[in-house]
Order: sequence, then structure tokens, then C-alpha cells
Amino acid sequence: MAVTEAPESKCDVLIIGAGPAGMMMAAWMARMGINARIVDKRSTKIFSGQADGLQCRSLEIFDSFGFADRAWKEANHMIEMCMWNPGEDGVLRRSDRVPDVPSGLSRFTQIVLHQGRIERFFLDHIKKHSKDTLRVERAVLPESLEIDEDRCDDHSADNYPIKVQLRHLTDEEAAPAQANGQTVSDGLFRSNLADDDTDDLIKKGRENKGGSEIVRAKYMVGCDGAHSWTRRQLGFQLEGEPTDFIWGVLDIVPITDFPDIRNRCAVHSASSGSLMVIPREEKLVRLYIQLTEIKPDASGRADRSKITPDTIIKAAQKIIAPYSLTYEYCDWFTAYQIGQRVGTNFDHKGRVFLTGDAVHTHSPKAGQGMNVSMQDSFNLGWKLGMVVKGVAQPSILKTYQSERRRIAQDLIAFDHKFSRLFSGRPAKDVMDEEGVSMEDFKQAFLNGNMFASGLSVDYGTSMLVAKPGSAADQGDGTDVSSTHYQKVVGGQELATNIKLGMRFPSFKVLNQSDARPWEFQEKLRSDGRFRIIVFAGNVVDPQQQARLKVFCQNLTSSGFLAPHIHTSIALLTCHASKRTEVELLRDFPEVLHPFDSKLGWDYNSVYVDDVSYHEGFGDAYKNYGVDKQSGCVVVTRPDQYVGHVDSLDEEGFVGVESYFKGVLVS
Amino acid sequence: MAVTEAPESKCDVLIIGAGPAGMMMAAWMARMGINARIVDKRSTKIFSGQADGLQCRSLEIFDSFGFADRAWKEANHMIEMCMWNPGEDGVLRRSDRVPDVPSGLSRFTQIVLHQGRIERFFLDHIKKHSKDTLRVERAVLPESLEIDEDRCDDHSADNYPIKVQLRHLTDEEAAPAQANGQTVSDGLFRSNLADDDTDDLIKKGRENKGGSEIVRAKYMVGCDGAHSWTRRQLGFQLEGEPTDFIWGVLDIVPITDFPDIRNRCAVHSASSGSLMVIPREEKLVRLYIQLTEIKPDASGRADRSKITPDTIIKAAQKIIAPYSLTYEYCDWFTAYQIGQRVGTNFDHKGRVFLTGDAVHTHSPKAGQGMNVSMQDSFNLGWKLGMVVKGVAQPSILKTYQSERRRIAQDLIAFDHKFSRLFSGRPAKDVMDEEGVSMEDFKQAFLNGNMFASGLSVDYGTSMLVAKPGSAADQGDGTDVSSTHYQKVVGGQELATNIKLGMRFPSFKVLNQSDARPWEFQEKLRSDGRFRIIVFAGNVVDPQQQARLKVFCQNLTSSGFLAPHIHTSIALLTCHASKRTEVELLRDFPEVLHPFDSKLGWDYNSVYVDDVSYHEGFGDAYKNYGVDKQSGCVVVTRPDQYVGHVDSLDEEGFVGVESYFKGVLVS
Repeated sequence: MAVTEAPESKCDVLIIGAGPAGMMMAAWMARMGINARIVDKRSTKIFSGQADGLQCRSLEIFDSFGFADRAWKEANHMIEMCMWNPGEDGVLRRSDRVPDVPSGLSRFTQIVLHQGRIERFFLDHIKKHSKDTLRVERAVLPESLEIDEDRCDDHSADNYPIKVQLRHLTDEEAAPAQANGQTVSDGLFRSNLADDDTDDLIKKGRENKGGSEIVRAKYMVGCDGAHSWTRRQLGFQLEGEPTDFIWGVLDIVPITDFPDIRNRCAVHSASSGSLMVIPREEKLVRLYIQLTEIKPDASGRADRSKITPDTIIKAAQKIIAPYSLTYEYCDWFTAYQIGQRVGTNFDHKGRVFLTGDAVHTHSPKAGQGMNVSMQDSFNLGWKLGMVVKGVAQPSILKTYQSERRRIAQDLIAFDHKFSRLFSGRPAKDVMDEEGVSMEDFKQAFLNGNMFASGLSVDYGTSMLVAKPGSAADQGDGTDVSSTHYQKVVGGQELATNIKLGMRFPSFKVLNQSDARPWEFQEKLRSDGRFRIIVFAGNVVDPQQQARLKVFCQNLTSSGFLAPHIHTSIALLTCHASKRTEVELLRDFPEVLHPFDSKLGWDYNSVYVDDVSYHEGFGDAYKNYGVDKQSGCVVVTRPDQYVGHVDSLDEEGFVGVESYFKGVLVS
Repeated sequence: MAVTEAPESKCDVLIIGAGPAGMMMAAWMARMGINARIVDKRSTKIFSGQADGLQCRSLEIFDSFGFADRAWKEANHMIEMCMWNPGEDGVLRRSDRVPDVPSGLSRFTQIVLHQGRIERFFLDHIKKHSKDTLRVERAVLPESLEIDEDRCDDHSADNYPIKVQLRHLTDEEAAPAQANGQTVSDGLFRSNLADDDTDDLIKKGRENKGGSEIVRAKYMVGCDGAHSWTRRQLGFQLEGEPTDFIWGVLDIVPITDFPDIRNRCAVHSASSGSLMVIPREEKLVRLYIQLTEIKPDASGRADRSKITPDTIIKAAQKIIAPYSLTYEYCDWFTAYQIGQRVGTNFDHKGRVFLTGDAVHTHSPKAGQGMNVSMQDSFNLGWKLGMVVKGVAQPSILKTYQSERRRIAQDLIAFDHKFSRLFSGRPAKDVMDEEGVSMEDFKQAFLNGNMFASGLSVDYGTSMLVAKPGSAADQGDGTDVSSTHYQKVVGGQELATNIKLGMRFPSFKVLNQSDARPWEFQEKLRSDGRFRIIVFAGNVVDPQQQARLKVFCQNLTSSGFLAPHIHTSIALLTCHASKRTEVELLRDFPEVLHPFDSKLGWDYNSVYVDDVSYHEGFGDAYKNYGVDKQSGCVVVTRPDQYVGHVDSLDEEGFVGVESYFKGVLVS
């Protein structure tokens, strides 16, 4: 048989894996017009089961792409968390109710919707913004990776140091094996109790002589899950050990007299283990159920053949007694062994990156997995996009590991504590040191809530975050300090509630031109641009008006900044005078609302902190901690995290310019 | 040539015309599972121009179908109305700003989005709910109508007294003629300055021997516009006369220094006529421009050949001077002659109905046309659906004309006043009796706002509205009093802000089972069912608990009502005790949260007036004017209008039962 050469092609970014982490990567690529490809070894997308919790921060991110509303509408909203444990008589009772998300954190609360729908929103978004040029290529997987190590630091536009061989499978080869005669969707084949099938798939593809091709890429992102093939090629490890705790998961329409089946519940039984209730969309409920009768074998892993919907529901019935619990419809089930592991490296020479489960695995009960995975890619995507476009300095790519590996470490610590409190039996009394005190559990839950919302993320100092302190201490140890310019430190006191390193919070403001109220964060779209947010203060005051003018003149006359303005840096303004005393065209320099000869003036960039006709008063300046007279200027990164804060004075302008000199190319 | 017989088929409801009125009709048919067809003479749907204003009430209705969010997201929101007129120096100035919609009326405000998008939402909805069995059949129009007059009163299931011959056109025949070489979408062919082309289309179809078919229908609805073919066949008239006022309409992306181009504006120039600004989605703005230089000819109709985008913008420039106004992009234009006309009859023998422009035409500036047209069908659709299903008494169909012709008369009166104030020149001073006083204009606008929101609709007494007074006085004169049973009159004092005959207002309540806040009106879905809304009061009080139990026992033991409960009458409960002191399964009779052997208990029918974790307190009982201790019971029709209010006592139950005995069949 003649050997035909595999066809060869180039792309800027090759994404391996089309789960939520890969989809988020692809979303950025589509939004920023990057020449990217995304491949997945599976032949179909997910229709049930898998991850389901969406934290507040994930919804804010979805909103920045424009599809949070779809998730918000379809999902179940989790409002209240109820704690159940044995009373003094040993009978299960509700001991507490707390809000599932602390109030005032975000305009969103935590919601639950299955991963298949979320992937659908991403697919629609990617299709729309890439004009259908970027599609998930299914039943395609990498089988070899070569990196030209010597050329990794060469950032010329025609350098493609990564060579990947891709194998195309038939649909049949790519379909996961389901247990025979199973009518319920079985998630075990993807759980951490199952073996990885990637090598089998590659072998099958080769034996059957499926097509293969060579792709040369500038960058590659492994979003290929806990068994990450990409991670294995790089020789990186996941560090950590599994525990003896085995949990089952059932997605069912429950038939029960348990009163809180539509609330999130933590149920600790006296001696039959614990159970968590996660009410879902439609009439589904997800139950996480501790399987106390199943133990890992000598290899440290549990025998998954013993785990069926029937054994799981029986365990649940014991825990939730005296309440009844059965079902007629089961949508999906799986099981997993609790353990926390984190990757040693997230990044190989600034060319190959790992995101999501490829670099952190943990237990699913806190609803963090999909969120943290998507947010890895959300952190990396715009950086890669700007570097590929030649707009940002390649050194910013180092912040991916320093920022996200630190988050993964925090997550692992959180999950370690949370899952142990969850799997322990409740303490009988204060003298019972082996049991879990329900008061401790409640406190841990409340403290964990802030973390679990995704809103406590606080990136350390780097060229992207003008914070005081040591980059190594605040990140994972990677050196990401700014080397090119004098280190800039933001004036946190000018905007006391817009924290450097944290996401830009949201309060309602009005459009100056049409009085429509908006959450200000909604104006920080994920379009791949930094933002200079001009808190213009009291613009009807002549002195403040003059400061604003000078600041804007500096922006447009800066040789470094001017070419980036409106292209890689958008401008957004919020003033604090009365809306009706101000006119857009008269009172604001043109750069804040640029003119286009075909489209006229820009009416969507200047806002005001004023009372709305129908939706109250956001009181944004007060809530942001900004002075209503003198204002300030805030720089946000394309992912809404706060990079710099400075004054509207001349020195403030120099600070802003210096910040960008450490990030963008001239 | 052999004469082949036209094929013949049957359907329950035949809808002529697929504009917004026809689409709304079809939406009901899809939701209620009625065997219906909808045909339209045009071969394509609308892509630009046409109607664009959506009032609060239309959005509430869209929400009841589940797609208000799509309109809300895409539309421009109109928040402020600005009035511009000459100052004492004769120079144009802003004299006033008022909210476009009074606050507190609805959770929605008025928005603007072009008709094509709204038709898209309907099409998607109809497809989904009819499982793709109900589709708009385009390029199909009726050419003959025969009604078996003797059988109109025979409501046996196999009686199809209407016979219609439908003609199928080719796409080419059905495409509207556009002016030659026109690049801008020209709306003149559909304006009231243009001749009707229906007869031409029929003639062409016959000459070309396009296919034809016979449809036998139980009911027919003519939603076929101002030139309604259906109305002509019935011999009904539109009464009223055109005026001399000619207005042009331009949809452009304006280039202007006029400060309020993103607000709704009424601009009265000293002597060049008036102009209205309607900011739209994207960067579009619709301008309504008085064309003072174009007059009707001897026939009473203006020569439309003189009307081009160029003549219209020139007229606008004169009015808006000294501000500049040009454009590079024009999306659509049209012109119309102001006039108000209303149909003599909306209904032929309870078998053929007319809705929308077929029975009322007026000027478009108040943004009422599409709204009132859709609401005609919204009023009629569920009545037809319930009668076709054999659930409701055919006599309820009479209320369509009594309710909607009255609304049309009110609309005509409103528009008559509003358009004259708009087209008049501003008064020079208080002695100038011919001019329009700007104070009068502002007052008329503010008074008109309530009407224009669609929320002032107040249907008169009938078998469907248990109000005191005379049915003839409160409607259009049609006799719609209940004849079968003793007249029921609702206890308005039990729910002082849930007005009999008006739409059920909305305040936030919480789901008892999961604490999620909802606008209570969201729970009144357009699913074709009446609702008994049980304001259960203080259910932890034993006496009130006992009243509730007896009321529910009466519901389930009533020979008349029991078969309708959950099928054509849904139950919805809101209590006023603390949520945490109440348990759904313990404290509420089963009929309020029915059990299903496959799906378990219903957790979505019992709500509570309590404080939410994240969205404040709706204070619903207080806002509805219902006593927190003793509650009451409210009956809403499938269109959310309030039919009856009564107590939870034995007499209250008798009242509710009597109401339904006048409406439903046993």
C-alpha cells in the first residue's frame, strides 16, 4: 500500500478538548478573530449529567459574552441552603437555613443547569462571532506533539514552533462505551473511577487507518480533562492523593416527602453517611450520596461494577430516613472518589498551556469544577489573543500560571476542608471529637460561600495588576513582575471598592444620552480590549472640566497610547453631575464619544451616576468609593479584573501610560 | 383542458394574514393544540420598517408566552420623552422632559424593535409549541368565501359552516412591487397612500392557473390588514375620514448635533411642521416628519410619487434647524395620511372574526397599531380555542366584539386628539387660539401615556367579567350579559387593587418550596386555562387553615368544577404567613400542589408574600389590597384579565362556581 503524506496546515492557536474549558478558549478566539482550531476526541456533545453548578462570577462572564440571559432563564436558581442532621433523639431534622449566596455580592446568584446546555450557548456564540469559521471538530484527537524548543522565544509572526499530528476517528470509534443494555445515561466511563481511553482511541484510529493530518501552531491549549493527553506529553504531573470517600451521583425526578427537596441541602445522617441535594431545572434533582459500604481496593480505587442507580438510591434512602425517597425517572448517574490534585505546571515555555481538569481535580459537590475550568481559559484566552495579534507583550502569558495555579491551590485547600466536613459523621455531642460539629460545618459553609461565588478571586501583582508587594508571594511563585518599566502602583484610595486584582464590581448607572439604566459591568464586554474607565466626577465644575480635558488631550497626544485607543483600549466614562445639567456633545471631549462619518456620534460610552425613572438609584460613586467631585481613572483588563487605579491629574495620566507600557507593544 | 377538482380539507380555525395580529392568533392555536391554518398573500416576511413600538402590556403578554426576554434584550428601551419647541426668540429649545412611561405601572417599559424581529419570535414560538405542525403558508390567499348561515348556530363537532377557496401563488406573483432601482426598502406600497393589490394577486393567480384548494373551517379570523379581503366579503365597513395631514417616516442612522437624538422627542417648529424622534435598536432612529408641502389632491389622497427619502429628510431639516441632520444609511421609508377609522362589526355570527388593522386604522406615532392589533387576537384566541375544544360556551365569543370594538373606539378618540395636537403649529402666545399650547400638549401626552401603555384596558361586565353595571354601556353595545345563571358580581373590596375587568397586576412573591422570587404575573402563563388564585391569607392560623381546607374540599367535590380543575382551570396559591413557618406538604391541601405518580409533587403552584434574600420585599398582599389574615380568591381569564373576586367562605365558593357556570360547559 502506498504511504500518502498527511496533509499539513497552520493555525495560531490549537485547542485540544471541547468541554467548558475548551469552549471558553474558543469563545475568546472567535471574539478576537484569531485563527484557531478546536478538536475533541468524542463524537457527540453532552446531553445529560456532568457538571451543573454556575457560580455568580461565571454568570457575569457569560454576560460579558452576551448569553448569561439564556442560562439564567433555563436554569434552576438556588436561593436557600438547608442543613439537616440528627436531633438529640437521633431523628433527622432541619437545623438551619442560610442563603445559598450572600446577598449584595453580584446581580447574579448561583444557578444549576446541565453542562450540555452551557456548551450549546458557547457553540451558538462561537458560531455567531466567528461567522461559522470556528467549529468544534469532533472525533479528532492528537497523537503526537513536537515542540521546537529553541524557537519558543521567537515571537516573529511566521514562527510555528508546535507540530501536532491529529488523527480522525469514525463516529463509532469515538463513541464512549456504555454498559450493556443500560437505559440510564451512565457517567461512570468519565468518572475518576474509570480508566482513560485516549490511548485506545489512538490505537483504534491507527489500526483502522483513519485519516491523519499535521497541524503547525503558534500556541496550543490542552483543555483535555483529568486524563489530559497534552499534560502527559509535556511530562507534567498532578500532585495529590485520593481519599477513601466514595460518592455516588444521581440525577432523578424524585418522589419524596422530604420537605426541602427543592432547596440545596446538606444532610448528615447519624451513621449512614451524608447526602447533598441540588435541585435542578425542570423537575430534576441531583443527589450526591456518600457510599459508605463501598471501599477502595488494594489499588486504592473502588470497584465501579458495584455502583448502579439502585445501589446509590438505597444508600440515599438510608441517609434520608424517615423520609421516603424513590424515583420513576433517572436521567444520569455516576460515582467518584474524593481527592484533590493540582498540576505542577500550567505552562510550557509560554507556548503550550493547560487549563481546567487537566491541572486540577477535586470533588464536584461545591459546584466549582466547571466554573474554575472555564475561568482558567477566560484568564488565558484574551492574553493569547492579544499576543497573537502582536498587540501585547508575550511576557504577559506568564501571568496565566501565576494567577490560575494560585487559584487552583486555593480551590484544592477549600475542597479538602469542605469535602471532609461533608463526609464525616455528625458529632454526637461536644465531647465527640471524631464527629463533625454542625456549627463548624455551618461556619465552613458560610465562609466557603464567598469563595464558591467566584468573586473572591484576587490576582497578585504583575505587569497586569499594579499592586504593591511581591509577585512571587501573591501568585504561585512564578516571576511575573514588570521588568521593562518602573513598577506602577495603583492608588487604591481613589476607588476604595474597586480592588486592584479583583473583578470590577457592578452598580447601576444611566446612559447620559437616553437615561437607560445599566449595570455598569455590562459595559465591560468581552471584546478583547482593555478599558480606561474615566470616573469624570463633577463635570459641570469648571476646574474639573479642565482636568478632564487635559487628561483626554494627554490620551490622544500620547505617542504610545493614542494608536491603542479605541482599538485595544476602549474608553468608558461615568460622571457624577446631574444628567439633565450635562450635554454629551458639549461637555465631553470627543475621544470619550468618538465620531464616525457613517454612524455619527457614539452615544454608548458616557454614563452618569444619577437616579433612574424606573429602577431606583445605583449610587455608584459611593458604592465604588470614588469621590464625586474629582473622580479618578480605573484600568480594567479584558477580563474585567482591575489592573490600575489613578487620578485624573497629569501624574495620573503618566501612571496609566506607564501601566500600558508594561503590557502593550508600541 | 381537463378540469381537475380542487382538493378539499378541513380545519377548525383558518387565519388569514400573518402580520402581528395573525401571528398572535396562531400562537394561541399552537399553545392550545387547535387544528388551525394560517395563510398570507406575501411570499416573504418583513425585514425592515413597519410598526416598531411595543407597549408595556404587549411585553407582559409576550412574557406570558415566554419570549418577552428576547424582545427586551434586542430592543431599544425608551425611557425619556423630550419636548422641543420655539422659545420666545423663535429658536428651537428643549422645554420639558418627562418619563416615557409613568413609573410603577409595570415591570416593563415601552421599547422599540422592528416588526420583523417580533414576527420571528412568534414564528419560533409557534413552531416549538405546535411541534412544527402549524406553519405560516406564504403566497396563499383566499379568493372566495361561503358561509352556511343556517348552520352558524349549530355547535356540533362535525359542523364546518365556512367554505373558503384558497389560491396558491408563485413567489414571484406574491412579491410586492418595489419602485425601480430603489436601494432603500420602500414602505409606500403598504401605506394607506397605496392601492390594495389583493384583487390583482387573485387575478394573476387565476390567469397563471396557480393551484387552488377548498378549506372547510369551523371558524375564520381575518387578520388581513386595512384593506382586509375578509372584511370586504362580509360587507362590513370602516367608518371615519382621512385628514389633510401627510407624514413621512424615515428609519436612518442619523448624523446630527441634535442633543436628544437618543430620546423620544416631539419637536414642534414655529412654521415648518412637527417631527417625532423614536430612537431604535442598533444605531437606527425613526423619524416621523410632517410633510407640510404635500397636500391631498381632489380625490382626497396625496400623490405618493413626490415622496422620497430625500424630500422627507429635507422637511426634517427645516423642522429641526438650527441643528444639523443628515444620514449615510437609510433602512426604510414610507408615508401616510392621518385618519382614524373603526370597523362597524368585528364578528359575523360568531363564526368569522376580524382583528387588527382590518377593523381599526389610525396614525402610527403613538406606537399603538401593532399592540392593539396583537391584543385583539390575544383577546379572541383563547375564547375560540376553548369553544373549539368544547370546554367553553360559544356565547363567550360575543365578548370579543364588545370588548375590543370598545377599545378600538377609545383608541380612535385618543389618536384623533393626539395626532391633531402633534400636527398643529405651536401657539405663539396665550392669545394664539389656532396654535397648540405646549402646556396642553404636555398634559395630553402625560394623560395619553397611561392609555398608550396598554394597561388602562378595562373590559366591561359580561359572563366573563363579574362586574356590576350594564354590559351594553361598558362595551360597544353588544349584549354580552350572562343569561344562564344569576348574575355574579365580584367582591372588589376584597382585593382593592386587583380590578375586575383589568389585567392582573404583578408584584414579587416567593416560591414556598425554594424561596425563589417571581413576578406573580409570570405564573399566569398563556396556556389557555383560567386560574383560581387562592390568596390563602395567614395559613398558620387554625381558623384560616380550616377555611382553606373547606374551600379546597368544595373545589374537589363540586360536580361542575372538579372536572375542570387542573385541565381548564389551574390553581395558584399565595399565602401571607412567614415562609419558614409553613411546609408545603403539611399545610396545603393536595389540590393546591397535586401529586403525580411519575413526577412527584407539584412544587410550582404555592407562593408566599415574604421577604426575599436578594430582591427585597414585594409586599404583595398590601399592594394587591388583600387582607393578610383572611385572604380572598381571584379568578383570572386565560388572558390574565380579572373575571371574579370572592371570599374563601362557603358563599365565596358558590360565587366562583356560579361564575364558571356562566362560562364553561358542564
